[in-house]
Amino acid sequence: MSLLIVTPDRDSSELAAEIQARDPDLDVRLWPNSGALEEIRFAVLWQQPAGLLRGLGGLLAVSSLGAGVEHVLTDPDLPPDLPVGRLAGRRLAADMAGYVVAQVLGHWRGLADFRSQQARAEWRPWTPARPPRVGLLGMGAMGTATATALQALDVPVRGFSRSGRGPDGLSVASGRAGLEELAGWSDYLVCLLPLTPDTRGLLNARLFASMQPGSVVINVGRGPHLVEADLIAGLARGQPAAAILDVFEEEPLPPSHPFCSHPAVSITPHCASITSDQEAAELIVESYRRVVAGQLPLRPVDRTHGY
Amino acid sequence: MSLLIVTPDRDSSELAAEIQARDPDLDVRLWPNSGALEEIRFAVLWQQPAGLLRGLGGLLAVSSLGAGVEHVLTDPDLPPDLPVGRLAGRRLAADMAGYVVAQVLGHWRGLADFRSQQARAEWRPWTPARPPRVGLLGMGAMGTATATALQALDVPVRGFSRSGRGPDGLSVASGRAGLEELAGWSDYLVCLLPLTPDTRGLLNARLFASMQPGSVVINVGRGPHLVEADLIAGLARGQPAAAILDVFEEEPLPPSHPFCSHPAVSITPHCASITSDQEAAELIVESYRRVVAGQLPLRPVDRTHGY
Repeated sequence: MSLLIVTPDRDSSELAAEIQARDPDLDVRLWPNSGALEEIRFAVLWQQPAGLLRGLGGLLAVSSLGAGVEHVLTDPDLPPDLPVGRLAGRRLAADMAGYVVAQVLGHWRGLADFRSQQARAEWRPWTPARPPRVGLLGMGAMGTATATALQALDVPVRGFSRSGRGPDGLSVASGRAGLEELAGWSDYLVCLLPLTPDTRGLLNARLFASMQPGSVVINVGRGPHLVEADLIAGLARGQPAAAILDVFEEEPLPPSHPFCSHPAVSITPHCASITSDQEAAELIVESYRRVVAGQLPLRPVDRTHGY
Repeated sequence: MSLLIVTPDRDSSELAAEIQARDPDLDVRLWPNSGALEEIRFAVLWQQPAGLLRGLGGLLAVSSLGAGVEHVLTDPDLPPDLPVGRLAGRRLAADMAGYVVAQVLGHWRGLADFRSQQARAEWRPWTPARPPRVGLLGMGAMGTATATALQALDVPVRGFSRSGRGPDGLSVASGRAGLEELAGWSDYLVCLLPLTPDTRGLLNARLFASMQPGSVVINVGRGPHLVEADLIAGLARGQPAAAILDVFEEEPLPPSHPFCSHPAVSITPHCASITSDQEAAELIVESYRRVVAGQLPLRPVDRTHGY
């Protein structure tokens, strides 16, 4: 009974050490040193190579190493009935909430402007007349943590989700009309959705046309949520007036990409929230134990909805 | 029965209009058009001129226009038994909490660095290994609102207050030893204290010597809480490594002041949180009604403690 970790784009030896520290008896293997493939019961996947899953006949379940699962669900070798889980812990959600709150309030209050005023030795006190209205697309762990933090700051928040469900006390829209109404209400429209066939390209010209002049779009979901050319066109009209982007169609963002030098685009390099080795190790050990005991992995995915 | 608003440094006609809109029968007067002084029962004060209180023999109480009361309590003409109130509403506290959260998390996550990396078309993903530890000096409405917001983001918070009292679930220190222990624990030490003889100059060389190398001091209290020369010396040693300052000994900060060009000092021009005319009007009407009904004004001050 073995656990395989597959992360071709990064060295996961620290993660393996954190897992061993928590369960010395667990046989952890790091791809490509996978050993006898038929012994592997649970695989944790991040950008796994094509064909990998074909060789793993003894799998009871797999998990994404992160909160997103699109790289798992789109693998043509994923057996149709194999349970798929995700790693999405409390720290991951809290870090995302902290990123969104810092970006929204820093931008709304013009903190960067004060830095330039300081450089010019100017003294111009200013505060916004009201708090911003924040629309959160996606009511998973990250959307919920972000909503809770903003509500603690008395910032008006509304949500959007496929089902219209969300935490108690939060107005949560659903459907196309609900989405556009929310976009029209929001000073900041924040994408925290999973990437599925339904959400791909959701941040597009039609949605931007619903937004208020002066509003801001924030994408911390996945690059393909955003139609990048539509955003450039929207910014030219001021709908939205600015964008804060952590994820992109192509990553790393090519230095020649128009976003790099666009005055209304603020970029962070896909690090709004990153699963820590400590939290990942804890969740992997727990998920592994569930799977070998015949249960579903942590945060099992509903494959009909794609998340 | 009249209400007098005294704000020599600013035009309060908007505020008066907001009060009239809420209570058209209330006789609101704006200094220096104070009318018959003996008719004034309640005065709202901000940097009132010397001697003003001597003429107001019919006063039942006064209130500061803001959350701080040091300009009222240090007025030599303040009758010893006259009740003193403050205006400190929910919006004022929430704005302060939002400012502190945005500054702390923006700094901790290096958001300004990503802006320079974008300008150089660099892609260097990075997140801190852990959330920051935040020590809040002062457990009034602002300190409490800030603690609540940080706790909603799973950020470790501790407090300090004269009494050691604070909101449930928060570790609150008191006394000199408690203050220095908190300073040594904190990545960010935030001054939200009232200005009293006990707290004047509290942010000084002795406290900075207790701070961790690399830590940050934030002053959003009052300028005289900070011994400015001690901060310059502390920054030279890296204890603290940086300062975020909204208030100063002299305001506006003179352009020649060393803080303006100091690379480790970030300045905002005393606008972390500003009482809005709407919120002030609501609180003034309520406080006035209490006072003429024989009750204490809103947020009555304990004059032995100075806040």
